[in-house]
This record gives sequence, structure tokens and C-alpha cells, in this order.
Amino acid sequence: MTRLRLGMVGGGQGAFIGAVHRIAARIDDQWELVAGALSSDPDRSRASAAELGIAPDRAYVSFEEMVRLESGRADRIDAVAIVTPNHMHAAPAIAFLNAGIHVICDKPLASTAQEAEAIAQAAHASAAQFFLTHNYTGYPLIRQARDMIASGDLGDIRVVQVEYAQDWLTEEISNKQADWRTDPSKSGAGGCVGDIGTHAFHLASYVTGLNASSLAADLDAFVPGRLVDDNVHVLLRFEGGAKGMLWASQVAVGNENALRLRVHGTKGGLEWEQENPNVMHFTRFGEPKQILTRAGAGSTAAGQRNTRIPPGHPEGYLEGFATLYTEAANIIRNDQSGTPEAGAHTPGIEDGLKGMRFISACIESSRKDAAWVSF
Amino acid sequence: MTRLRLGMVGGGQGAFIGAVHRIAARIDDQWELVAGALSSDPDRSRASAAELGIAPDRAYVSFEEMVRLESGRADRIDAVAIVTPNHMHAAPAIAFLNAGIHVICDKPLASTAQEAEAIAQAAHASAAQFFLTHNYTGYPLIRQARDMIASGDLGDIRVVQVEYAQDWLTEEISNKQADWRTDPSKSGAGGCVGDIGTHAFHLASYVTGLNASSLAADLDAFVPGRLVDDNVHVLLRFEGGAKGMLWASQVAVGNENALRLRVHGTKGGLEWEQENPNVMHFTRFGEPKQILTRAGAGSTAAGQRNTRIPPGHPEGYLEGFATLYTEAANIIRNDQSGTPEAGAHTPGIEDGLKGMRFISACIESSRKDAAWVSF
Amino acid sequence: MTRLRLGMVGGGQGAFIGAVHRIAARIDDQWELVAGALSSDPDRSRASAAELGIAPDRAYVSFEEMVRLESGRADRIDAVAIVTPNHMHAAPAIAFLNAGIHVICDKPLASTAQEAEAIAQAAHASAAQFFLTHNYTGYPLIRQARDMIASGDLGDIRVVQVEYAQDWLTEEISNKQADWRTDPSKSGAGGCVGDIGTHAFHLASYVTGLNASSLAADLDAFVPGRLVDDNVHVLLRFEGGAKGMLWASQVAVGNENALRLRVHGTKGGLEWEQENPNVMHFTRFGEPKQILTRAGAGSTAAGQRNTRIPPGHPEGYLEGFATLYTEAANIIRNDQSGTPEAGAHTPGIEDGLKGMRFISACIESSRKDAAWVSF
Amino acid sequence: MTRLRLGMVGGGQGAFIGAVHRIAARIDDQWELVAGALSSDPDRSRASAAELGIAPDRAYVSFEEMVRLESGRADRIDAVAIVTPNHMHAAPAIAFLNAGIHVICDKPLASTAQEAEAIAQAAHASAAQFFLTHNYTGYPLIRQARDMIASGDLGDIRVVQVEYAQDWLTEEISNKQADWRTDPSKSGAGGCVGDIGTHAFHLASYVTGLNASSLAADLDAFVPGRLVDDNVHVLLRFEGGAKGMLWASQVAVGNENALRLRVHGTKGGLEWEQENPNVMHFTRFGEPKQILTRAGAGSTAAGQRNTRIPPGHPEGYLEGFATLYTEAANIIRNDQSGTPEAGAHTPGIEDGLKGMRFISACIESSRKDAAWVSF
Repeated sequence: MTRLRLGMVGGGQGAFIGAVHRIAARIDDQWELVAGALSSDPDRSRASAAELGIAPDRAYVSFEEMVRLESGRADRIDAVAIVTPNHMHAAPAIAFLNAGIHVICDKPLASTAQEAEAIAQAAHASAAQFFLTHNYTGYPLIRQARDMIASGDLGDIRVVQVEYAQDWLTEEISNKQADWRTDPSKSGAGGCVGDIGTHAFHLASYVTGLNASSLAADLDAFVPGRLVDDNVHVLLRFEGGAKGMLWASQVAVGNENALRLRVHGTKGGLEWEQENPNVMHFTRFGEPKQILTRAGAGSTAAGQRNTRIPPGHPEGYLEGFATLYTEAANIIRNDQSGTPEAGAHTPGIEDGLKGMRFISACIESSRKDAAWVSF
Repeated sequence: MTRLRLGMVGGGQGAFIGAVHRIAARIDDQWELVAGALSSDPDRSRASAAELGIAPDRAYVSFEEMVRLESGRADRIDAVAIVTPNHMHAAPAIAFLNAGIHVICDKPLASTAQEAEAIAQAAHASAAQFFLTHNYTGYPLIRQARDMIASGDLGDIRVVQVEYAQDWLTEEISNKQADWRTDPSKSGAGGCVGDIGTHAFHLASYVTGLNASSLAADLDAFVPGRLVDDNVHVLLRFEGGAKGMLWASQVAVGNENALRLRVHGTKGGLEWEQENPNVMHFTRFGEPKQILTRAGAGSTAAGQRNTRIPPGHPEGYLEGFATLYTEAANIIRNDQSGTPEAGAHTPGIEDGLKGMRFISACIESSRKDAAWVSF
Repeated sequence: MTRLRLGMVGGGQGAFIGAVHRIAARIDDQWELVAGALSSDPDRSRASAAELGIAPDRAYVSFEEMVRLESGRADRIDAVAIVTPNHMHAAPAIAFLNAGIHVICDKPLASTAQEAEAIAQAAHASAAQFFLTHNYTGYPLIRQARDMIASGDLGDIRVVQVEYAQDWLTEEISNKQADWRTDPSKSGAGGCVGDIGTHAFHLASYVTGLNASSLAADLDAFVPGRLVDDNVHVLLRFEGGAKGMLWASQVAVGNENALRLRVHGTKGGLEWEQENPNVMHFTRFGEPKQILTRAGAGSTAAGQRNTRIPPGHPEGYLEGFATLYTEAANIIRNDQSGTPEAGAHTPGIEDGLKGMRFISACIESSRKDAAWVSF
Repeated sequence: MTRLRLGMVGGGQGAFIGAVHRIAARIDDQWELVAGALSSDPDRSRASAAELGIAPDRAYVSFEEMVRLESGRADRIDAVAIVTPNHMHAAPAIAFLNAGIHVICDKPLASTAQEAEAIAQAAHASAAQFFLTHNYTGYPLIRQARDMIASGDLGDIRVVQVEYAQDWLTEEISNKQADWRTDPSKSGAGGCVGDIGTHAFHLASYVTGLNASSLAADLDAFVPGRLVDDNVHVLLRFEGGAKGMLWASQVAVGNENALRLRVHGTKGGLEWEQENPNVMHFTRFGEPKQILTRAGAGSTAAGQRNTRIPPGHPEGYLEGFATLYTEAANIIRNDQSGTPEAGAHTPGIEDGLKGMRFISACIESSRKDAAWVSF
């Protein structure tokens, strides 16, 4: 099987998420990185490209150049991964979509609602696909949770508790990762709420299949001088009557990357934690709690799909991320062959828009003293 | 050492919490149960008393009779434990306080604010002590957490996450425990919020030393036909700027008695779960997380006080409850001897009033669509 | 119901296990401590007795005096608890058994095989009962495990892994608890193997119902100058073909009181840890692992028997210990009434003898370079 | 950077470990699979190769053909991965070593001691490197544990407890994975002891730096008709006086892939479990237990080396495996450049020989009724 050709915007030396995207793209051997606008500095762009095995003539200094020159090649890239800070998503995304090149974009969708809308318009107008890397949806047990709920194992959902706690911004710090995330001109008006709150919100929606209809949010910037929120408390109301709470924090000392989801329905309950993603607790009301394992006893088809190794051999963050790349590859290949792909749940433009509405609603609600905001 | 004499109102055959109080009173050998108004039915009162080794002439059929006859005895009871449903706290509590007999009362304080106020007036007017059995405060690691925070180990508190999840009321059921808790004429207007929400609220305040100044609450009665709330979502604001979330639920399938507290400050974080109460996680910012154990390495004086056995030998719910009885005994003995007791943090009438205001504020806020309510 | 009258030999001020026995005796309200030979020093004996509410005329200075004077009383003690160091079990046990007074004795049975045999002869010759406080058998989930295995839930047992790890003797120390346990003239020839190895061995036998037929042991005294073993490695062979490993250590840094049992059969597997005794993991082959909780969903009659509070409210070490006292009380009362007690599994003299044979076999095997020793 | 060229022997359609090797080789982008003798059936070899993007002219039908033709190419493979059953390691390994091509071989080294010796001779005679994929050594926290012990954080090691429990062979089954592992003509005389016991033994040695000097083993084949062991109990003695226990089982119901290591020394203790490999417990004697996380607070240089993402983002089995491939690539590149690689601890031929001696010693000891066997 021939690999699809991938380009990358951002992700030069020192970047975190760019390297993650590259590993994720390699794991299932569906992609080859062949082009990049890795840096706006010509020397760094070339140096980064050389390290990554990208041919010098495809080491671009801007995404505009990359779109223009790639579009003219017979072996042009099939898709581009956009791994820049939030405020630099919209321009390249729109350019590549307009050129008919598939886009794999990091989250949140953009830094402003206007940018997000513009991307959405471009996506709708383009024959190309738009994928948003809400990578936590790629964990096999998250897929299994989604299917268990859809098939009624939990009954009607009543309560959704989701949280995403970190502590790396507990004190004032300055480094490549922190700087843009705490600068509203780059991250957008949301800090923690955009960076990790959107992950939590998306995961809750993705797994339960529920649409949040309104929220009340209390946002804080606890670190003196911080310009964006670093702690987020949200009450959620879902269509159909379920209720939820969402907590996101980057100042919760003792937490590294503690994304945790709990869902309770009339018949059952589920609990899952990202830091040990190969297990999930499931309780049927009145029965002993079960420890479900990735690909283990009682796993569903969705739980076995896109998993690579037997139970007890832990898969991690990179494998979950890889699943999004592999699903994107399958969708693109099927597009090419005219066969729609079934069973893939890769987040896309609608998820991105919802995430942006979530951020906006949280900020608006918090400014109104946690009044309910519909969205 | 002579045991103090204990009477009991409520707690006849089939009761849950009455038996707990009696074991708790026995564990540290400070109390002897000698009198009871265990049931309003004379035959059942006598039968229950006989089972418990209470002399027939002190097996009363009403608390009024008990107050009157005990008051006339030279060996009258030192204290009475009131373990009736919420709506039956006020009348006996006031009667015993008026008679100068110490009162140990289950929580919440009462079923209405009016009753609570009346108890408080009686308590303030009486020389007798009033103890409220927020028993979770009796766990040694909770005492240690309180002292660690008071001594600054966590720095300034920013975020408090507290939850108390059960699932036993997931479906409509009828039994002695469920019936009065879901009947507002007995439990008061609050269901879950009064029964376990108050425990969670009290624990958060007790450990952090923070006063909540306002809250926004979203209460639900998910089970069809239920007259009181069974799921409680609350945003909290504390004096000084800390923020919190409180979740209490009796319909969270997969939870037996999952009271959990997490506190995060500028310097450190703490996590504790009631179902495995002999361990607590503590992280100093930037250092590895520690597993603190009851009476184990690094335990503080408060963590060692009122613990009975070496680390690794688990103490449980009954021992934590016993600590309240032992502290009450110490306070009463010191009252008698004129020496004030230091180091005891047994909840009392003020905690009871705060708990009632918490219930009222939650109900009021929820009726106002989760508007902020000060208290 | 009238309490049974309990006496105690040993357990004066500063003792650990004496206080544990007293709490255990109180918890279910079946016993009243009324006499004691708590210390051989007359002043300390009286002072200890006064603290414990024992009448001065029943504060004896020796067990011999206690046997003699109690035997002459109409209200003589029903049973005596012997909580002295190992080498001081035999003489009082035999004396009380000869006097027809029931004996509740701490483990191991004695410090030598000769003493053990002498106790056994006295027990067999006496109408009085002999109870041995292998208290870990009192945990409700241990009872449940025993019954699950007996009823075939695990199929035929193949592998038994049991371990009991502590670290308090990692370095040379001197205190009341350590001194006699590391002095072979008091503890017997076994150190760790007698103190905690016997608990582990007994628990494995008790739960599985299997008899060990031979063992190979490798014992070490790692701490320089230590006269008894402090680390014990044992291979076990059971009648019927099951195999086991037993590890006991008092120098395993990072362990407080880590007694852990795992049993694997042809159909299922069980895992339990004493430090969090309210949960047990159970797996039917090919199905998801279950988390069984004390008195929770799926608990058996044996798991519910002698448990006091609902699931999620942790019971601990003292409650498990209390169950032995309560079962002893039931057996004694039934003896008195002529009704045999069903369902109690309180360890007795045979368990004590087996434990002594286990110690001897380990020492013999280790001296023979871990040769197999039958027993 | 140019990728190294990798060939593969074995690993055709339906294989487990071949796919693992391929992912591991891709993760850090150091390798490109360009040749394979994936199957002895020409059609399947070609089909498998096509799936994997191997050019048709490099899809060989035998390793002999592969050695011959690759040796003649200017772009010949840099290394070959041998992922066949144990009895098919020696012949290709020797052939490639003789051709001067680096070998990356799955474990155990071979199915017989004779084969192992022959490989070792070839490795010693060849300028090419020989790597053995004891992949569990690739976990960052295992590297950290090794360095912590080497630097004295645990003091002198006294006790090593290692176990590797699975349950997939609890019953008689027949499939591609089970068949060769339970056929002594393919697996060698050891079943469980060779398949996973060697991993456990190697891990214990690797982390502690201790050499085992003798062992006593009790092996069983519990499943009726099974020709190789499926449960392994071993006592270990190490040079310098440390003692150990090793348990390996494939019939321990309730275990998926439970490799667990605990090490206790005079100053500290460590515990690690493969199924949640991103945490490790560490206790300094007398201090609270710490939860060390991969790349987290307090991690050492060795713990940070070859880890790809921040703490809290779990890495898994495939990343640990990838580290071996990356280290092999570094060593090979440095060989080419003449610069020795520092800090890599990739297992090699000596580890393979020790593993074979471990298997032989276990089998010999077990045949002699668990007599001590030196090695």
C-alpha cells in the first residue's frame, strides 16, 4: 500500500505538538511527511526539514508558498497538518481547503469566532476533508464507551462529570509552550478553557452523544498578571435533561494531564481516566463494578477497532492520536475510491465550531457572573 | 475511668445510624448506653432496650418521658444521642438542652430553618454542649489535612473540589432508610442536598478553613415522582477568592459512598477519598506526589491524634465516628473539671446552622435557575 | 442481652495488641472486661486496671493468682484473652483451660513446638474452647472468598500467592514491640516467619481450604546482628497439586502491613489486599474483572455475615478482629445453651498447631538449604 | 536524516510480534522496512510484502535467499529483524551475522542451548551488532529505576520480587500464537519460563544490576496434555547476598500481561507494573511513598531519555519497544561514524545467553525437585 503524502505547517524545532502529529502519522504507516512550512525563518525551515527527511525543495518558508508550489506538483501532498498556535490556524486552513487539499488541524479550531466561521465556510465550499485532532477520542475505550452508551448499556444519561486538570501553569512561567497559550492575541480570549476545556467538553459530547444546550461558567485567572483564565468551573445542561459539570484547570497542583470522564445513566455508569487509558470502570446498576480493559474481555467491536496489540500491553497517547491519522487516511482513500468509510468518528469542522461556541459561551457567562448562556 | 452515661432517642430495631452511634460510643470505652427512647411503641421500645442491655425502667416510650424521668435521677445520663429522622431532631434536642443534658445529634441539624434556629437558641441558652455528628471529620487524615492547610503547606487555597456520590436511590425504592429521606415532611425540603450534600459542604469548609460566601446550584430529581432532589451541582465562591465545585448524587450508578475531597493551593495539592480513608495524596508543586498514610511516615500530630492502631492496619468509618464520641466525652469531662479541651474540632451548633443555610441556599438558587445566593 | 465476662493476661500500658483485643471485644457489645493480670508489677497492674475500669480486687499480679481467685467467684470470667509475647502463652493458656475457662489466645500459638503440644493437650482435655486470633480471617471479604472457593467459583485451585510485607524492622531498632519479636527466647526460633509468616500461611489455607503438604524455605536475617529471620521466601505444595509461593518480610521498604492474597483456579481468580480490605477483585476466566465490595453488589451470605455497615462505609482491622470475639461469644453462648453454632470459622487449636508446624518446617528447610520438608 | 534500512524474517500476515517490531521501528523515524522473508510461501510472502510497501524484488521466500541477494546490493539492509518462533532464530541470525548485517532478534535467544551458543559464536566473530528485544527494558521508568539503584538510592539490595502473570493459556486452546509456544520442538523445552519467565528474569537483573548465582525452581504444566510448563515458581539467590522470588504464569486467571517488579534495599524500595508503566512507587525508608511519573517531577536523566511526550500523556508498550530500535539505530550510526554510543542499555547477546541459562537452570532444578542449580 502506498503512503499518503503529508505536509505540515508549523512544528519546527522545539515544538511539542508537531512532533506528536508526526509520530501519530507514522504509527500505522499510512502517511509520509514530504513537505513542510515548518518555520518562517528560511534557515530554520531548511534545517528542520533536513532533520525530518523532507527534500530541500519542499521545505517552504510560508504556507502561502507551500500551497502555491504544492498545488503545481503531480506528487502534491494529499493533506496538510496545521500545528501552529490557535491564531495561525485559519489562514493556512482556508488556503489549503481552497486548493482542494485535505486539512488536519489541531484544536481549538481558531482563536476567534470569526476565524472559525471562515474556516467552516471554506470547509463547506471545498471538496477536501477537514479533520480536527481532538485526539482523546482516539482511545479505544473511548470508542467503546461511545458505543456502549449509544447501544443503551447505561440507559438514559442523567449526569456527566468531566474534568481536565493540570498544574504546569501554577506559577508564572515563560517558555515556548506557555507563552502563546497565555497570550490572548495568540490563544484567543480563552486560556485554559480553550486549551484543555474544549477537549473535556468535546469528549463529554462525543462519548454521550448529547448536545449541551446551555452552560453557566465561573472562570478565574488565579496567577497574578495572567491575561487568560487558568481555572474553569462550568455547569452544563444537555438537551433531554441530563446535567453536567466541567472542571478544567492549569493550576491544580498534583495533576499532570488528568482528563477524566464519568457518565451515569438510569441503568449504568462509566468512569475513565486518560492517564491510565487502558482501563475503564463500568457498573450495571445493582451489579459489581467491572474493570474493562482495552481489547480485553467484554470489549466491543468499537473497542477493538484501531487497537494494535493485545490487552495488558498498554497503548498510550500516541496510539490514540495515530487512530485519528489512520481514520483520516481511510476516509481520504475511500473518497478517492468513492466508497464511504463506515465506523470512523473522526472529529471535524462541526466539532470545531461547537468547541468555539463553548469557549465563547464560557467567557460570556463568566462575564455575566455565571448566568446561563445558550448555545 | 468511669464511663459517661449515654441515652439515645431513636435507633430502635432496623435503624442504621443508631447502631453506628452505639458502636462509635463503645470503641474508645468512654460511654455506656443506659437509657433510651428507642421507639414510640412500648413493646418495641422495651424489646430494643433489652437487646441493648438497657434496664427496663430506663426504656422510655417518648423523649419527653425520658427527659422528665432522667432529670430526676442521681445517675442521670450525661448526654443523649439523637438519631431520629431530621424532622424529629428539634423537639428532643431542645428538651434535653433545656434540662442541661448534653446533646449529640445526627446531621443535618433539622428539617427546617425554623427548627434549626430553635435548637441554636436552646443551645446558646444552655450550659450543656451540642455536638453534631459530621462524622467524616473524625478521620485522622482529615484532621491532618486541616492542619496541613492551616500551617500553609498548600499555600493560598485556590480551588476546592468536593463530591459525594452514591447510587442507592437510582430507582424508585421503598424501605426504612429511603422512605423518610425522600419525604420532604421528614427530611426537609432538601433530599440529597441535605442528606449527603451537607456532609460534603461541611468537609470542604472544615478542611480548608474557608467560609463559602455564595453559591449557584442546579438541583434535580431525576427519578420520576421523587419529591426531593437526588442530584446536586453547585458552584461555590469562598471568602478570599477561592472557588469550588460540589457534586452530590444518589443516582450516580457505580458509587457506593464516594465522598471525595481535593484542594489545590499556590504551593500544594491534596486528594482524599472516604472509601479508602487511610491514604491521602499530597503534592508540593514541582515535587513527586506523596502517598500519606494514616499514622504513617510524615504524619502530623493531628494525624496521629485519635488513631488507635499502627499504619497499614486500616481504620474505618466506625473509628472516625468514634473519635467524635471520644472528643465529646473529653469535652464533657473537661467541662466538669473546668479544664478546656484543646485540639478537638468536633462539629457543633454553628456547623449545623451553616449546613442548614447551605441547604436553603441551594434550594433557593436552584429555584432561581442557579442564580448566586449569598449566605 | 448480658455481656460475657472477659479477663486479660498481658496488655498493660504501652502494649499494642492488648488494646486491640479490648476494642475488638467491645465493638459488638458481647464482652465486658472485668479482670486482668495486666502486669507482673503490682503497682502497674493496679494502675492499668484502674484505667480500664477493672475493679481493684480483680487486678491481679499474676495469671496464677487470677486463675485461682477467679475460679472461686460466682461471677467468674467466661473467657480470658492471652496477649503476652509468644513464650508466655503456654502457661496461662494451660492453666485457664484446666480451670474450664475459655481461652482467646494471640498468635502464633507458642514459642516452641513443645509448648504448643502442651496447650493442645490441655485444650483437648478441657471442656473449654480455645480460640486463636488469626484476625485477618475476620474480614468479611475473606469469608466471602472462602465461600466462593468452597462453592467452586474458582474451579480447581492451581496457584496460591500470598505475601505479608512490612518494613518496620529494616534497621536495628529497640522498642517494646521490636525487642521481644527479635529475641528468640521470647518469639521462638522464628522471627518474621512466626510473627507474620504464620498469618500469611494461615490465610492462604483458610481461604482456599487446601492443606499444604510440603514446603521449601529460604530465610534470611538481613539486618546485621539480628538473631531471627526478617525475610522469608517459601515454595509451597498443597495436597491435590496446587502450588504456592509465600513471602513474608519485615525489611521490605515501602510496605506498612501489606498482607496480600491471590488465588487462581481453573475457572477464576481472586485478589485481596489487607490495607484496603473492603474490595476484592474477582475474575471469571474470559470475563471482565469485577470489583467486589464488602456487603456490596454480588456479596454472598458469608460476605454479609458479621459486617456492620453498608458498602462504601469502610470497615477496618478492628472490625475484622471484633468478628472473632463475637463468634467466640456466640460459640460460648451456644455451648451454654447446647446449640452448636453454624457458620463460624473462628481459628482454633488445630490452626495453631499447623502454624507451629509451618514455622518449624520453614526453619528446618532453610537450615537444609531450602530442601523440601513435609508437614 | 536518512533512515536506516531494515529487513524482516518472519512477521507475515497474522503474526503478532512482527507487527509490533514494525511499529516500533517507525515511531522514532530511524528505520525504513525495505526487505523481508515474511513467509516461506511465495504467494504469501509477496502479498505480505505488498501490504507493507516492500518492493517485489525484495520480497524473499527464505532468509537464505534474502542474505544472498541483499548482500549483493549497494542499498542492502543495515539490519534484519528476526521475529520467528524460537527454533527459527539461530539459522537466520547466524547467516546475517556472518554476512556482516546487524541483527535485531526477538527473545528468548533460541530454542536450545546449542543454538544459543552458535548464535553467540557468530555474534562474537562478526563486526555486526546483535540486539535482543527484551523490550520491557525500554520503558523510561525502568531506565530510571536502573539508574536510581546504581546511584545508591535504594542502598544495598536485599530482596527482589518479580512476576509475570498472564491467563491466556488457562485452558487448552489452539491458535497461531499458542501453538508454537506450547510445542517444545518450536519453543524449546521451556514454555512459560522461556516465553515470559525470561522477560521477568532479565528485567530483575537489568534493573538491579545483580547477577543471579543460583536458583531453585518448581515448574508445572497445569493444563492436561500440555507439553511445556505453564506456571513457574523460582527462588533466586544473587551474588552479594540478595534474595529473590520469580513467578511466571500463563494460567493465572485475572491477569492479562502483569509484569511487576519490586526491589527493596537497605535505604529504599521501588515498585513498578508494566500495565500502567508511567508510574513507579518509590519509598525512602522512613519517608512517605512517592509516585514517580514518566518524565515527571523528580525524574532522572535516564528517565527522561528516549521519552517523547510530557508527563501525564501516557506512553505505552510500543514506545518502550521503539526505544530499543532507536538505540540500535544510534549504535549502528555511531559504529559507522566511529563514535561509541553512551547511555544506551540495549540488551544483547550476553543477555540472551543468560536468559537461556536461566531457562535451562529452571528446567534442571525442577526435574531435581527444586534443587539449587548454579549458573
